[in-house]
Amino acid sequence: MAAPAARDENLDALRALMAAHSPPLHALVVPSEDAHQSEYVSERDKRREFISGFTGSAGLALITMKEALLWTDGRYFLQATQQLSACWKLMRIGEDLPVEMWIAENLSDDAVIGINPWCVSVDAAQRYEQAFSKKRQMLFQLSSDLVDEVWKDRPPVKPLPVIVHPVEFAGRSVSEKITELREKLLPEKAAAIILTALDEVAWLYNIRGSDVDYSPVVHSYAIVTLHDAFFYVDKRKVTAEVEKYMAENGIDIKEYDMVATDASLLASGKLKGSAVGGSLDGDKDINGTANSKIWIDSGSCCLALYSKLSSHQILTLQSPIALPKAVKMQESYGASGYFSEAKASQKKENLQSKLTEVSVSDKLEGFRATKEHFRGLSFPTISSVGPNAAIIHYKPEASTCSELDADKIYLCDSGAQYLDGTTDITRTVHFGKPTEHEKSCYTAVLKGHIALDVAVFPNGTTGHSLDILSRTPLWKDGLDYRHGTGHGIGSYLNVHEGPHLISFRPSARNVPLQASMTVTDEPGYYEDGSFGIRLENVLICKEANAKFNFGDKGYLAFEHITWAPYQAKLIDTKLLTPAEIEWVNTYHADCRRILEPLLNEQENEWLRKATQPIAVSC
Amino acid sequence: MAAPAARDENLDALRALMAAHSPPLHALVVPSEDAHQSEYVSERDKRREFISGFTGSAGLALITMKEALLWTDGRYFLQATQQLSACWKLMRIGEDLPVEMWIAENLSDDAVIGINPWCVSVDAAQRYEQAFSKKRQMLFQLSSDLVDEVWKDRPPVKPLPVIVHPVEFAGRSVSEKITELREKLLPEKAAAIILTALDEVAWLYNIRGSDVDYSPVVHSYAIVTLHDAFFYVDKRKVTAEVEKYMAENGIDIKEYDMVATDASLLASGKLKGSAVGGSLDGDKDINGTANSKIWIDSGSCCLALYSKLSSHQILTLQSPIALPKAVKMQESYGASGYFSEAKASQKKENLQSKLTEVSVSDKLEGFRATKEHFRGLSFPTISSVGPNAAIIHYKPEASTCSELDADKIYLCDSGAQYLDGTTDITRTVHFGKPTEHEKSCYTAVLKGHIALDVAVFPNGTTGHSLDILSRTPLWKDGLDYRHGTGHGIGSYLNVHEGPHLISFRPSARNVPLQASMTVTDEPGYYEDGSFGIRLENVLICKEANAKFNFGDKGYLAFEHITWAPYQAKLIDTKLLTPAEIEWVNTYHADCRRILEPLLNEQENEWLRKATQPIAVSC
Repeated sequence: MAAPAARDENLDALRALMAAHSPPLHALVVPSEDAHQSEYVSERDKRREFISGFTGSAGLALITMKEALLWTDGRYFLQATQQLSACWKLMRIGEDLPVEMWIAENLSDDAVIGINPWCVSVDAAQRYEQAFSKKRQMLFQLSSDLVDEVWKDRPPVKPLPVIVHPVEFAGRSVSEKITELREKLLPEKAAAIILTALDEVAWLYNIRGSDVDYSPVVHSYAIVTLHDAFFYVDKRKVTAEVEKYMAENGIDIKEYDMVATDASLLASGKLKGSAVGGSLDGDKDINGTANSKIWIDSGSCCLALYSKLSSHQILTLQSPIALPKAVKMQESYGASGYFSEAKASQKKENLQSKLTEVSVSDKLEGFRATKEHFRGLSFPTISSVGPNAAIIHYKPEASTCSELDADKIYLCDSGAQYLDGTTDITRTVHFGKPTEHEKSCYTAVLKGHIALDVAVFPNGTTGHSLDILSRTPLWKDGLDYRHGTGHGIGSYLNVHEGPHLISFRPSARNVPLQASMTVTDEPGYYEDGSFGIRLENVLICKEANAKFNFGDKGYLAFEHITWAPYQAKLIDTKLLTPAEIEWVNTYHADCRRILEPLLNEQENEWLRKATQPIAVSC
Repeated sequence: MAAPAARDENLDALRALMAAHSPPLHALVVPSEDAHQSEYVSERDKRREFISGFTGSAGLALITMKEALLWTDGRYFLQATQQLSACWKLMRIGEDLPVEMWIAENLSDDAVIGINPWCVSVDAAQRYEQAFSKKRQMLFQLSSDLVDEVWKDRPPVKPLPVIVHPVEFAGRSVSEKITELREKLLPEKAAAIILTALDEVAWLYNIRGSDVDYSPVVHSYAIVTLHDAFFYVDKRKVTAEVEKYMAENGIDIKEYDMVATDASLLASGKLKGSAVGGSLDGDKDINGTANSKIWIDSGSCCLALYSKLSSHQILTLQSPIALPKAVKMQESYGASGYFSEAKASQKKENLQSKLTEVSVSDKLEGFRATKEHFRGLSFPTISSVGPNAAIIHYKPEASTCSELDADKIYLCDSGAQYLDGTTDITRTVHFGKPTEHEKSCYTAVLKGHIALDVAVFPNGTTGHSLDILSRTPLWKDGLDYRHGTGHGIGSYLNVHEGPHLISFRPSARNVPLQASMTVTDEPGYYEDGSFGIRLENVLICKEANAKFNFGDKGYLAFEHITWAPYQAKLIDTKLLTPAEIEWVNTYHADCRRILEPLLNEQENEWLRKATQPIAVSC
């Protein structure tokens, strides 16, 4: 990344463009999302990182003529303080004013705030406009992104091929999915839906790609009407196979940039596809009533496309793709991922040769790469020693990274993409003698990790309600962690997937958990400058077999599908209940049973040691 | 109460009035609240009970020309099915459509829905209007309450005297409180506030009364401007002492009905008090900026008063009284209440003579009445045997109530009003041999009761987040309870007090818990037709002395101030963790220490037996 000095020059260049702009901009909002509101974006879309130097996956930069501010969440407070130059001020989400409020309070009455309308969601834009309405401040939609203009060496587009995702892994065929989608349009009086989220397009059309590191998605949009389906993509990425596949499934392939024009045509009822079928206005649903609404998800649809539609025809509802994508009924879960997880934690303890944060994570990636169906990592491996482990999303650099150290805690959070699943696991270990404090913190995290794993709850319960179960053991000691307890996880898709979430923040989008949803269980504790602890498994939500069924609600529970031992030496058994000790021993016995057949003798020797029952309190 | 037949005739009479009304009413909404949105109302305000026969404290009746529906919450599902005649349909809150949605979906496009504007809050009215806007349905504000017209023997007003609540119990003087209130008006640019909640008026002016059973409040309103303070009350209730007291504190006493006129005067800036001071519009705050807003709490202010104001001048915010009233910094807690609680549970086990649900609760009231500062019960004692205990808010009638039974569970939920505090306690006991199922249910409830009691949590945590802690032990078995886990509790005021709440329902009003707030801890389990279990203590929120203070948030914990043993024979110690067993033993030891000096030898003999340590798991 550019050196701070160079970066601060970019800031000046940007301010010059803001001043020269007509109308002159008092402020520029630079979000970290791309034109699809992605969490992880391609190199050329990392505008916020380019201008601020902050590399975290979440954050927003605001540049005024005098100030430069960066908002990010608790996962990144420490990292941001380290990466931001003196020109920048860190704004802590949850503690400081939200960006729109800050603007309303701190900028002049007639301030013009510029934004790239492709990189802001309708929801966010409306929050801005509401806050700005207090004064006469204005959110101005820029015709070109000013950051791109100062970004001299911005990486070019790499036209990497689109790949068809086989039904054996996808679970359902694209035609089934499109039919199901159209059935959801009818009752909402919708004639069409515009899909902008990359994982939703990939899921619906059963395609994958390589446009974004760690997320096997394709930069693309989809418009699905009652009769037609469109796929907007850089045609250089479309192979003959994909062309044939799309044609067979009645999907028209169009150039990526055509989506804006087609949104306007859709609005005026003039968008036609190759499929036979009447005009938009003429469309009748099964009940004969006219469908005329255009469905967008205001959380993922960008302001640019929204502006092409007229408000009376817009239906803003959560995307009907979100839930079926999250509920993994038909997907198969291969063992491929879990196997290398376990093998990895074995290698981590092998201290024959010198190991660094990077060499260890490379080694781990190497193991994974040997597995069938491996398609790359699902996010940059967080391989962190001692103080680095307190940086929740730490990313080691070969040149500067630490060596593994027998006196320090080592935290490894890693995952991979496989055709048969996306994995995400964290284990924390110590190669020497942990302190009593490290042990009691690790044990508190483990208690929270177990509390969520064993939770039983009625249908209708949200992850927000469950979040506290993992925190109370830490709260007892006045400890906490500044991130959610768990996130949904895709199937050979984004490692972070909605619409559900196990978070302390209440959210309208925080839908109740359902059977067959996948979610991570990853409480932690981070002591700045000293160490970090996190334990993470992937859970599948399933019907609980509870003794009773009060209120006929049906009760749910979790099944963990991640297998790697917890390090006994970090567990203070005095702090565990008999039930928790039993949970650990059962988990370790299962690890042995499941992994033994997949390991060689030397590996199994380690595994047997690592899975010894921990002291049983009578 | 009237017999069902008579009641159904009232329904016909009401429908005749609805038809004759101009415009004709398609439906009439009959809420259970009075003109102050009270939860517990005076006999003459029990319009919903009169018309429906359902006696629960919460519920809403909707009468159309064809149907009669009653909405209530999970605490009352069972009771409502028993009390409603065949003319009525029970609508279950949380399961069925909310009333406004039901109307929007089921009544004609041009339906006129009548309501007494004094008995509906602004929030509720706006929910109706929003739902009705989908069609052209109209919410019509009635000039008189139609139920009163058919209610022949409606009880008259009893002009019972207003009493001054001494500062030694109130904690702060009225002048302090008014000054503090005015300081809160300034930053909000408010010139005045209209207080409509009875406990808020009573708290602000340090007065009490006898207008509502169980709640020592006075039917009254308050308007406080930057210079004046008004008290609207039936002047027949005002003694010479109160007149003098109000005059000394610069509070103008006006007739109860004048509040509507004065609200209009306030709106037009013409409301003058006896206190020296400029006109409303002229008022300047310390910063010299004009204060012109009129503050109302849309959750408690009625539509009738709201309609007197013009929208541009209305400030709708949670009442600034709610929080200081809830945070009981200065209030003293007498032992008077807790003593009789314990004595009661002793008497409950004395089976020499025949005891019924009513005779036992009368006996208990008798004990309480002997205590210093006793002022009556804080709600109708729930004294219930076996199946009756499954009726969450069961109220026994002398004529029909059950006898205590050695083979059945007995649940007693009772509380009293004392000058030095309001109490609320529930214990569940069995006089013979409980079944294994009863024991495991009781133990699950106890585990939930303990889990909340020992919770430690950072500032900013709401009761909604904590609620799940008490449910998880029941959820494990597929059990649950249809009520919140805890409610705020007044100090010689309403036994149910906001703004905080420990509930599974998320709520915008569910403010974070704060040190010095009081709250109950009362999970339960109810098996229709067979038994009910509830355990309830009063907790005070306080600073936790946690080892650390991550994030400098400050951590909170609870202190229980209710002392009565749990019945050992209902506890299945196998299901308790060592920590839970220890909690019970410590609680019992404390009970003994605190209560022993207050009891006679015979009572102490019982107490020693009742507080034996329960089997300690090694």
